[in-house]
Amino acid sequence: MLDTAPEKRVRDLIDTFGRALSAGDVEGAVSLFTEDCFWRDLVAFTWNIRTMEGRDQVRDMLASQLASTKPSNWALAEGEAVTERDGLTEAWITFDTDVAHGYGHVRLKNGRIFTLLTTMVELKGFEEPLGFARSLGAKHGSGMDRKTWKEEREEELVELGHTRQPYVLIVGGGQAGIILAARLRQLAVPTIIVEKNERPGDSWRKRYKSLCLHDPVWYDHLPYIPFPANWPIFSPKDKIGDWLEMYTKVMELNYWGSSECLGAAYDESAKEWTAVVCRDGKDVTLRPKQLVLATGMSGKPNMPNFPGMNRFRGEQHHSSRHPGPDAWRGRKAVVIGSNNSAHDIAAALYEAGADVTMVQRSSTHVVRSDTLMELGLGPLYSEQALKNGITTDKADLLYASVPYRILHEGQIRISNAIRERDADFYKRLEATGFMLDFGDDESGITMKYMRRGSGYYIDIGASELIINGAIKLKSGADVAELTEDAVMLKDGTRLPADLVVYATGYGSMNGWAGDLISQKVADKVGKVWGLGSDTTKDPGPWEGEQRNMWKPTQQEALWFQGGNLHQARHYSQFLALQLKARMEGIATPVYGLQERHHLS
Amino acid sequence: MLDTAPEKRVRDLIDTFGRALSAGDVEGAVSLFTEDCFWRDLVAFTWNIRTMEGRDQVRDMLASQLASTKPSNWALAEGEAVTERDGLTEAWITFDTDVAHGYGHVRLKNGRIFTLLTTMVELKGFEEPLGFARSLGAKHGSGMDRKTWKEEREEELVELGHTRQPYVLIVGGGQAGIILAARLRQLAVPTIIVEKNERPGDSWRKRYKSLCLHDPVWYDHLPYIPFPANWPIFSPKDKIGDWLEMYTKVMELNYWGSSECLGAAYDESAKEWTAVVCRDGKDVTLRPKQLVLATGMSGKPNMPNFPGMNRFRGEQHHSSRHPGPDAWRGRKAVVIGSNNSAHDIAAALYEAGADVTMVQRSSTHVVRSDTLMELGLGPLYSEQALKNGITTDKADLLYASVPYRILHEGQIRISNAIRERDADFYKRLEATGFMLDFGDDESGITMKYMRRGSGYYIDIGASELIINGAIKLKSGADVAELTEDAVMLKDGTRLPADLVVYATGYGSMNGWAGDLISQKVADKVGKVWGLGSDTTKDPGPWEGEQRNMWKPTQQEALWFQGGNLHQARHYSQFLALQLKARMEGIATPVYGLQERHHLS
Repeated sequence: MLDTAPEKRVRDLIDTFGRALSAGDVEGAVSLFTEDCFWRDLVAFTWNIRTMEGRDQVRDMLASQLASTKPSNWALAEGEAVTERDGLTEAWITFDTDVAHGYGHVRLKNGRIFTLLTTMVELKGFEEPLGFARSLGAKHGSGMDRKTWKEEREEELVELGHTRQPYVLIVGGGQAGIILAARLRQLAVPTIIVEKNERPGDSWRKRYKSLCLHDPVWYDHLPYIPFPANWPIFSPKDKIGDWLEMYTKVMELNYWGSSECLGAAYDESAKEWTAVVCRDGKDVTLRPKQLVLATGMSGKPNMPNFPGMNRFRGEQHHSSRHPGPDAWRGRKAVVIGSNNSAHDIAAALYEAGADVTMVQRSSTHVVRSDTLMELGLGPLYSEQALKNGITTDKADLLYASVPYRILHEGQIRISNAIRERDADFYKRLEATGFMLDFGDDESGITMKYMRRGSGYYIDIGASELIINGAIKLKSGADVAELTEDAVMLKDGTRLPADLVVYATGYGSMNGWAGDLISQKVADKVGKVWGLGSDTTKDPGPWEGEQRNMWKPTQQEALWFQGGNLHQARHYSQFLALQLKARMEGIATPVYGLQERHHLS
Repeated sequence: MLDTAPEKRVRDLIDTFGRALSAGDVEGAVSLFTEDCFWRDLVAFTWNIRTMEGRDQVRDMLASQLASTKPSNWALAEGEAVTERDGLTEAWITFDTDVAHGYGHVRLKNGRIFTLLTTMVELKGFEEPLGFARSLGAKHGSGMDRKTWKEEREEELVELGHTRQPYVLIVGGGQAGIILAARLRQLAVPTIIVEKNERPGDSWRKRYKSLCLHDPVWYDHLPYIPFPANWPIFSPKDKIGDWLEMYTKVMELNYWGSSECLGAAYDESAKEWTAVVCRDGKDVTLRPKQLVLATGMSGKPNMPNFPGMNRFRGEQHHSSRHPGPDAWRGRKAVVIGSNNSAHDIAAALYEAGADVTMVQRSSTHVVRSDTLMELGLGPLYSEQALKNGITTDKADLLYASVPYRILHEGQIRISNAIRERDADFYKRLEATGFMLDFGDDESGITMKYMRRGSGYYIDIGASELIINGAIKLKSGADVAELTEDAVMLKDGTRLPADLVVYATGYGSMNGWAGDLISQKVADKVGKVWGLGSDTTKDPGPWEGEQRNMWKPTQQEALWFQGGNLHQARHYSQFLALQLKARMEGIATPVYGLQERHHLS
């Protein structure tokens, strides 16, 4: 490769940086960063997921972690070009630590490091058996009474959890649990997933029948087996259910369906959990070293408590329990809420011939799916991005390379462009009385998702039904009470109802810890999710990362795995490495352990 | 891209070639080929799988096909480099025909075309919904009473074969049938697979328990969903069984398990088959337009007819019915035969503690798996090949680009290198009396497979067991008869036996047509497989292609699909396009229809 000027510039800087780190010269290293720098580390230096903002935080982290991390071999990544754009020079880098191989990304501004991303790829000596290192499969040579693959697998299914203990117990067998278990399997970490539903994929199959993924296929790949080129852009729920089921099977996961974790307690001296699992009606006690809650990123259903709910004679349920519209043709339905599920459910009810009213209690961000795909995700996750050489792995890293502190800046630009393109659509929607917002700082859907995980609808058609009156809208209203056959609003409106769907969202994931372990542990861990942006439903102080997700919490050996498919895929890599390191007795000094500021 | 000298040379020649073809100037086109040229066409020009050898055959083909093919737009393939090696200039090319897009490969010698490969990629207007063209999945907008993906799929499963007829019926639901059905699904060709076993993958699961694929993972990918990077090199049979089952599910194939095709007849006037299928014990009459036999490339088990078989009191079965060694610990087993299955079965019996004798009746080619992987398949199908940019698709095309007439030349070189590297191994093996061969012309395993599909063992350990006497060998012997408790050889040897396994191979696939349709049709079609090389078990005349495989046969609307995973994958593309074109009423003038020279 030609040693172009920008390439030489990065190479020189990386060399200098590496030399300073090797010499333990923290000040020398810090001086290579800009004043307004960011260093985002995914496990490689901090054994945590952590963004250092500004030189002081970089200095503090290095002072704490450099001696144990022992980084070396800083280099430009092979086969990747250095690029220049908007005054920034960008490059992919590789490095080693004492115990791992790392990969990263750097942006230089005025010859100094503006953003640095460092990620752990694999632990030395515990590399995944992939590609050149894949297993032989067939057993060549000969040996008396050798077991076949099938015999070994059947033995494992019988033994694990009974005569042998799993190292990790994952509670929740949706995509997040499955993805993490797949990574742990590659790392030879004995793992059991417990899931209430019978089969993998049921958590999708059992949702309302019109549900499809709102994120596109390029964003949704599972690790190891990407969706094929013929996979639809927005997968129908039952199709993704089938995919998860086959994935669980061919990835050889130890998946206990029809199983419920009844309770878990941590023994601080034995450093071990005791978890009672009811499997097919029979109690089994497991003693895993690590407990991962993958029980749904959105946590527990928020069921409202309106007066009169107990006297209502129709059907009423939370949106997560809504089976679909088939029973409601010609009948009256009221949907409380105005986010994704509320819109999907209302549209499906209308299409099945029900009379539907949506009650919008607070403002909602709406973005048209087509526009979002093109302007929002397109540059990283699309067929065109792939054609441009941005593989899923690369897209994940690029996404991760932008510090949360400044992520909203780009998002405001995107959201403004979306708003302009769809100005007419938004005008028509607001004309119905629909309360529309674009986020506290006009940054749109991505920040809403990162900050609070709610407050938006990705429009695939329901907005037009609201605009043309097919779905009736009561906005700016709140529920006063339920009568035997109606929802009464505070403004006096009476909405006769055979069905009430509460699309009222979810609570924080630590609620699951409260149920499963104890309220004390839930309170010790505190709120899960959110950046601390001090915007609606995301109270400060500023965290700079998702609270408590994929990283150590205040409760030793308790972890949270989840997020959308992109996050569950990408961050499970780092969670899996943290668990593997602990299993192997590798030192994992955590820098900047998550503090608790909010109970939920 | 720089217009390098070799690139310019190919570009000029392709331009001239294209102009001659467009002008209908057959002589002009022919003059661009070398005297000893080859043009291999996969469906694009001939609606057949056919190699033209020498200028006369090229001329004849063009005279017949040029007017209907109307080729155009000849160009160098985008993003592919022109290379030079051993006096040959190689390039990837693209072209169109009147009805299709094509892709090809050319080798120039002294400025003329030495080999040309032309393949059909997709029919215009019927491109597969892949990548940019993938389906939306979710149904955006709104519509009353819309069906979900699941509802539509369930409807199809109920209707197809009952109220709606499939266009194609595939008999046999092993990998070959599954792969073809997956391609047809993408092309929207209504297809049903019928399979005697209950579940996809059972044809692997039910084989002897130590069975693993003998070809490596890189050679074995299914279309659309490649094996993941963690897949073992040689997949255990049950693991490949699970993969096929999940593949069938997620590719949404109409797979009738526990179903047997009892008989089929072709109505020449209605251009339609009548096939009676017993599905779960109930007869269903199907009326497909096309019938594909995918009942096993090796065709029907050859069960020998030795005197005394009916009085033998032990267990005796064909290798295809052998369940594995578990019942035979401490007992005596005789394996008749010395090819792959014979070796695998004998080794597993030995490892399970049986007393095993292998009866070798004729010479066998043996090649050590490691050596074969490295010297034989490595350049095209290996992790290293992938790293060198040779994707599976590219490897398939490169493999296809070498005409069968000269394939053995390279294979002799490879086989000689193998023989040299493993000279000591071969010496020790022959010292046991094992009758070893390297093929009639010393061309080794690939040609044996292509010519006769038998006569070899890919050694993964059993040869060492023969060498050290763990597996007893009786070579150069043939069976005289069976007694109540022994196999008697013609040399008078008595081999006491509790178990006799007949690893005696398979007959030609047209035997299936005899069973299913009529002996008359089986005889009309004739022998399936073989190149006509006039070597052992591959009688002439020279065909230059596999007889009757993946292309039109003497029986209208009857097709054979099969081969190893590589072949089933690659050639199913062309079979699927032939079937799709017929469904859409596209003219498919076949050049050089397969003749019958041998009944079986």
